[in-house]
Amino acid sequence: VAENHLSNDQRMILVDWGTTCLRAFLLDGRVIAARLTGPGIGMLAEPPAAVLRTALASWLEASPGIQVVVCGMAGSRNGIREVPYVATPAGAADWQDGAQSLRLWGSTVTIAAGLQGRNTAGAPDLMRGEETQIFGAISRHPQLAAGRHLLVLPGTHSKWTEIRDGAVGRFHTALTGELRALLLQHSLLLRAGAAEGEAGDGFDAGLARAVETRAGLLGSLFEVRSAQIVSGRSRRWSEAFLSGLLIGEESLRMSAAFDASGEVVLIGTAQLCALYALALSRQALGAWTLDGDDCALAGLALLAGSERQVTQYAH
Amino acid sequence: VAENHLSNDQRMILVDWGTTCLRAFLLDGRVIAARLTGPGIGMLAEPPAAVLRTALASWLEASPGIQVVVCGMAGSRNGIREVPYVATPAGAADWQDGAQSLRLWGSTVTIAAGLQGRNTAGAPDLMRGEETQIFGAISRHPQLAAGRHLLVLPGTHSKWTEIRDGAVGRFHTALTGELRALLLQHSLLLRAGAAEGEAGDGFDAGLARAVETRAGLLGSLFEVRSAQIVSGRSRRWSEAFLSGLLIGEESLRMSAAFDASGEVVLIGTAQLCALYALALSRQALGAWTLDGDDCALAGLALLAGSERQVTQYAH
Repeated sequence: VAENHLSNDQRMILVDWGTTCLRAFLLDGRVIAARLTGPGIGMLAEPPAAVLRTALASWLEASPGIQVVVCGMAGSRNGIREVPYVATPAGAADWQDGAQSLRLWGSTVTIAAGLQGRNTAGAPDLMRGEETQIFGAISRHPQLAAGRHLLVLPGTHSKWTEIRDGAVGRFHTALTGELRALLLQHSLLLRAGAAEGEAGDGFDAGLARAVETRAGLLGSLFEVRSAQIVSGRSRRWSEAFLSGLLIGEESLRMSAAFDASGEVVLIGTAQLCALYALALSRQALGAWTLDGDDCALAGLALLAGSERQVTQYAH
Repeated sequence: VAENHLSNDQRMILVDWGTTCLRAFLLDGRVIAARLTGPGIGMLAEPPAAVLRTALASWLEASPGIQVVVCGMAGSRNGIREVPYVATPAGAADWQDGAQSLRLWGSTVTIAAGLQGRNTAGAPDLMRGEETQIFGAISRHPQLAAGRHLLVLPGTHSKWTEIRDGAVGRFHTALTGELRALLLQHSLLLRAGAAEGEAGDGFDAGLARAVETRAGLLGSLFEVRSAQIVSGRSRRWSEAFLSGLLIGEESLRMSAAFDASGEVVLIGTAQLCALYALALSRQALGAWTLDGDDCALAGLALLAGSERQVTQYAH
């Protein structure tokens, strides 16, 4: 399967469907015509295929038979169709070969494969969705196709990924975003501070703390609460401090685990990548930031239009 | 205020009231006559004093005017009466001086103070309830009243505490138990494994992992999920593995932060202390385990019967 480029007359729908969010893009040539957000695959009342059809309804009706490409948890056991993980090391062609297509609503729906590999400690690790951004980044930026690069995709489950000559090698998941959300929603850590007051230097203080402490993350988290009770910190400051502790710990430990040096490639939203760039700078690492949606679209486009066995959908 | 010893004719009620559980003991001399469990102070529908009275009703009616001593979150802002923290370094006499008594239901109800100090990284830290077990342990075991000892009280918020010549110095809170509960209840980490299957060597595997990995706790937690998906581990094995990761990380980092050597004193339930003893043995540390309830009772008894200003209760 060769690399695919969009011709200007290709209309298609590209979908990044993760655990918490569905984002869909209507393309006509290289122009994004529209965008939606919908429910994540972790919280569906209906079968995933029905939810996807509802989310895309107006576009499907306007362009009968339009091709659809989906990455993320749509290919998981609880998704539209379980697509097996592709083993690393994996280049773009290996990954493209692992995608599966099915006929749905008169369209060809192609579902991306995830990757399965080993983390820096030699344990199994998995990704579904981030590989699409990674191969998209490589296809958009030819300098990533040669040599060794360390890519960081921050999020609910941050993925630190080593690529060598355009192929994904070791990668390692950090639970940073999920842990932050759990603590914000369910812990008493953030319930002692005043609702008034700004974030101020909370994030920087958390980053500094993550590096200074010898007691590890479990030994610094309670400082979020004592900062409110003893030092009178506001809730916003404390939330920013928590983010700094978590992102600081992730950056410190993961960059060490990968023996990182020089520059890291960050892929994600500008806001989150800026926080990671700050954290990485404390490990004397530079950061080159790529937009996550751009990379996802470039990766999904690699799966469009290729010859691939098409099967009927059976729920 | 001198150390108090129970005489054989002293009837009293001793209560350890934490965030998640109320435990009450009826004493006649040194004999425990009964025991109750009730709601933690974090989940009350009624005012705390009313809840306590309900929990103790039959004992209060049987012995009008019986004295009551309470430690834990009963002395917090949302408790029966906010009792200020006593600053460390603090010996038993300092702590006894910080307790407050009030008249309730014809009885004298004494509420223990918590402690406020600095952790190993110099940040503020707090405890309410564990100090009672610590001073109880020291009063029961005279060898703890001289020299330096490291006490570990594992739980929702584990407290690692240095004592020197019987006074509490630095102490450091680790969020281990709370994080474990949050992940078990709310995370997808544990939702991929089969309900059948035993814990097996899961805990040991987690302990080993915590020491081996260079990626830190955030970088090892996702292994709980991939072990189920890739390696077919059961839910019980994975839960034990998670406990091993967390207790292993806590033991590794906190023992380093305190420059621990030789023997550590564990205070808590036999089951939980056994897990910590295993983890500590991997850092070449011995463990001497004391029963948490015994220590709490000994500590509460230090607050019984002493001369202390008594005030009326106003809710």
